[in-house]
Amino acid sequence: MENTYKLRFIPLGGVVGVTKNMYVYENYVNDVLKDILIVDCGIGFPMEKELGVDFVIPDITYLKDKTDKIRALLVTHGHEDHTSAIPYHYKDLGSPPIYTSNLTASFIENKFKEFGITEKVNRVEYRKDYEFGDFKARFINITHSIPDATHIQIKTPVGNLYHGPDFKLDLTPPYGAPPDFYEITKAGHDGLLCLLSDALGSERDGLTLSEAIVGSTFEDTMRKTKGKFIMTTFSSNISRIRQCVEAAIKFNRKIVFLGRSMRQNTEIAKAINYLPIPFNLVGKEDEVMKLPANKVCLIVAGSQGQYGSALSKLANKMNKFVKITPGDRVIISSDPIPGNETEVYSLIEELTMQGADVIYSDIQDQLHASGHGSREDLKFLIRFTNPAYFIPIGGTIRHQQEYRKLAESLGHKPDSVFLLREGDSVWFTKNKATRGEVIETKSIYVDAYGIGDIGSAVLRDRKTLSSEGIVVAVLPLGANGRLVARPKIMSKGFVFEKVGQELFEEATRIIEKKLKPQGTELSDMNKARGDTVRELETYFFKETGRKPLILVETIQI
Amino acid sequence: MENTYKLRFIPLGGVVGVTKNMYVYENYVNDVLKDILIVDCGIGFPMEKELGVDFVIPDITYLKDKTDKIRALLVTHGHEDHTSAIPYHYKDLGSPPIYTSNLTASFIENKFKEFGITEKVNRVEYRKDYEFGDFKARFINITHSIPDATHIQIKTPVGNLYHGPDFKLDLTPPYGAPPDFYEITKAGHDGLLCLLSDALGSERDGLTLSEAIVGSTFEDTMRKTKGKFIMTTFSSNISRIRQCVEAAIKFNRKIVFLGRSMRQNTEIAKAINYLPIPFNLVGKEDEVMKLPANKVCLIVAGSQGQYGSALSKLANKMNKFVKITPGDRVIISSDPIPGNETEVYSLIEELTMQGADVIYSDIQDQLHASGHGSREDLKFLIRFTNPAYFIPIGGTIRHQQEYRKLAESLGHKPDSVFLLREGDSVWFTKNKATRGEVIETKSIYVDAYGIGDIGSAVLRDRKTLSSEGIVVAVLPLGANGRLVARPKIMSKGFVFEKVGQELFEEATRIIEKKLKPQGTELSDMNKARGDTVRELETYFFKETGRKPLILVETIQI
Repeated sequence: MENTYKLRFIPLGGVVGVTKNMYVYENYVNDVLKDILIVDCGIGFPMEKELGVDFVIPDITYLKDKTDKIRALLVTHGHEDHTSAIPYHYKDLGSPPIYTSNLTASFIENKFKEFGITEKVNRVEYRKDYEFGDFKARFINITHSIPDATHIQIKTPVGNLYHGPDFKLDLTPPYGAPPDFYEITKAGHDGLLCLLSDALGSERDGLTLSEAIVGSTFEDTMRKTKGKFIMTTFSSNISRIRQCVEAAIKFNRKIVFLGRSMRQNTEIAKAINYLPIPFNLVGKEDEVMKLPANKVCLIVAGSQGQYGSALSKLANKMNKFVKITPGDRVIISSDPIPGNETEVYSLIEELTMQGADVIYSDIQDQLHASGHGSREDLKFLIRFTNPAYFIPIGGTIRHQQEYRKLAESLGHKPDSVFLLREGDSVWFTKNKATRGEVIETKSIYVDAYGIGDIGSAVLRDRKTLSSEGIVVAVLPLGANGRLVARPKIMSKGFVFEKVGQELFEEATRIIEKKLKPQGTELSDMNKARGDTVRELETYFFKETGRKPLILVETIQI
Repeated sequence: MENTYKLRFIPLGGVVGVTKNMYVYENYVNDVLKDILIVDCGIGFPMEKELGVDFVIPDITYLKDKTDKIRALLVTHGHEDHTSAIPYHYKDLGSPPIYTSNLTASFIENKFKEFGITEKVNRVEYRKDYEFGDFKARFINITHSIPDATHIQIKTPVGNLYHGPDFKLDLTPPYGAPPDFYEITKAGHDGLLCLLSDALGSERDGLTLSEAIVGSTFEDTMRKTKGKFIMTTFSSNISRIRQCVEAAIKFNRKIVFLGRSMRQNTEIAKAINYLPIPFNLVGKEDEVMKLPANKVCLIVAGSQGQYGSALSKLANKMNKFVKITPGDRVIISSDPIPGNETEVYSLIEELTMQGADVIYSDIQDQLHASGHGSREDLKFLIRFTNPAYFIPIGGTIRHQQEYRKLAESLGHKPDSVFLLREGDSVWFTKNKATRGEVIETKSIYVDAYGIGDIGSAVLRDRKTLSSEGIVVAVLPLGANGRLVARPKIMSKGFVFEKVGQELFEEATRIIEKKLKPQGTELSDMNKARGDTVRELETYFFKETGRKPLILVETIQI
């Protein structure tokens, strides 16, 4: 009897949320899972960042009992939202072989070092099939805002898919080759079940500008700058950094990198020769103020206005070597990620107050070319590949819907476009795709202190703290568990101190009344705490209409 | 010994002059011409049109003694500047087999009928090689402003060439398939010696709009039009005509075609099912004014304001059935060809004076999408095909130079781009191209009365007539060749009559003085004429500073 094959696709991130890209392809033979191929494993930037979460990583619970089936992890390009969760999950995924392009491999290996992982990453060749169980994968050279970006043609027993995240059709990329149009159209010619396409630019008309436009803007601006030239962008944006470096070389400015991520990434790029800088133009932080201002080019991390970043330190006079002085020009060569606007604009205010001339994309068009294709780029990819089905990835629901309209405008049926949320799945058989069951996922938060040790309960607390404040009650208890002194009540972020005094007096009396009469045995300590929380909640809500976080602690005397 | 092959490319038109496209490819084996392949054979619109020339056709003198080598005539699309000279030259080219797309073939066969040529035209299949001697040709489906437009990959013993005239990359062509990107990029992948590319849009930024945009503009405008809806465009622009027809069907307007070329071309398109119209919506000229105005859609020839065209007759109240009435709307859905602006604008004036609301592309953007790709279209074709050499065709010198800059911006060397004039030639050997000798060509003018019977001498006369006027002197001679009465001098367009009287009196005296004394024998009649011309030229130039055309005739009495 002949085998019957099925394929399942599951996004564990990257849909709806834009970032935290991770995609699972499963090959079933006679309804038994045989091979898993994973594409990308990046971090996400959650809306909860104001609650102290640094980033989120994909939830791989679903994969934990299937690690023996995972044939490989393929990585499309070196941006953090496609790579940076790898070290967190690598061992839990069973340390699968990783295949990716040159710069991406260097970035991953560098992160591995910090985590003490010693495995090497496989650098792929283009125009070559790699076999992973019943899968074959073929990396295709594409253009984005980072060198060595790729798309992947995934060949499976039920048909081929085209995994096409983050791209624009840049005909004049500053470094590296233009898109490999022959391989892309050939993937279409060979027949495609499904195109998984970047959808982030589906609201923008026209074609996205080439990265090359930014280089000439850097040159023009540097020519006119009498003070220090300060450029900030994502530290993974090696193309843009290199364009700034080349302008600096032209104008004989010494180049100084500020910020840990910026120094690390540029070191990596230099090591594989993606960022050549003459020795005499490499500068250090502590010599910046000794050089003539017009002989300095600073390339600085922190383009999103992150607190504590190198740029934020500059703006807040917290860098002990480098000061902003009038005549300096700051180029912000990246757009704020949705949600970061406030931070970026307040950074611009602070820099301006210190005399810098700040140029950002609101006031000048050609400082930042999006890395993501606009409508015409996306339409070209559809025409090149001509698939039966579509899955827009890397966009919000809004972008997915616009993408569906685009596909419709090219004559494709709306139900050929699957709008997926995280954990949704699609089953593919020969010539057919249908929606599958939902895989449950939860958010895994990472902050400075650890991974996953803050769960949704912690965030709920932080949320309450941020909006309602906290009341702490301390109960001094004797050995017999009775109150031996007046309870002490303190608060932060709850009410004004003056109002509080009276409120807390009354609250203290309520606790005393509750805990005194019958006395409390040690074994009931928890009950005493619980009762106290409930009493205080009720009382404070009645008096103030608020529900502060209430923390009751006992001190045994 | 192995054969050595060489290839020569000669444009007999289509370069510098934009129109009159005709290209010759020659295959030499051991320096002996073996095979000729011709691409296109169209008419041109000369700057001399104001002197009574209707159009020009290519000069095929060079080919006349080589007809036994001509293997085929390939035609890229159905526009007049690529097809309409074929019937004039077909027999002189030795009646070679013609290969082209479906609609183009029908257009050519229709023209053949008028000339009594009975040969059939071969309709090609795409994705198939056709052999012509040592040449192979492969037609590639492309998009332009007419259906069934093609590019041709020409395979020769020294390498492949990509013949890529008139195109834009239309991802949503209203009829027919989008460009065959796989075949285009595959031509590049197979290796290309030379790309011959449309260059007309090389001054325009961005991508050219899709033809589809025009269809929705027609609908929107028709919805708002209370009177007759009158659309004019090139009669070969079947896509645009079909979009207008489809809007008319939607609004239940009866469709009437005005003008001979419009009726003929739409008949041809209907016959091959490129223009389906329900029987009940086909109308005739004489019923237009009997129908409610908002139930009529006229599609009219004469978009260039040509004198005597259907639209010009409408504007000048010379159509005995159809009148313009207030509330009518005229849509001019084509841009004036350079040189025709005056005619088009005076047509707009006349139509407006009669109460029509005239919409043209100066006042509304989306009435006419150019058929020619802009810079980004042209850059995409370069990236798709990645040739060693370039020959921009179908553009003026200005467009050729801009095209060279485009190629440079993509990293190609300026000397890889050949800027050719008519008759210039390029030699190709394996991996190398060099400029060849110049083939002399002259202009062959066609007017209402014949082909080639007006040469450059006639045009020089017309030019003089139009700027200096004419003087006619009649010499009454006796049998002995002597003047038997006073010479008679008349003029047109030379000087005012009053001034003339005195001038001609004196001129008469001069002729008498010259011809009387010695008498003139009949055998010297020509000398008498010549002497008289010279005398008058000298005299008139001295007196008036002008050099009218001087015509001297003798009458024997």
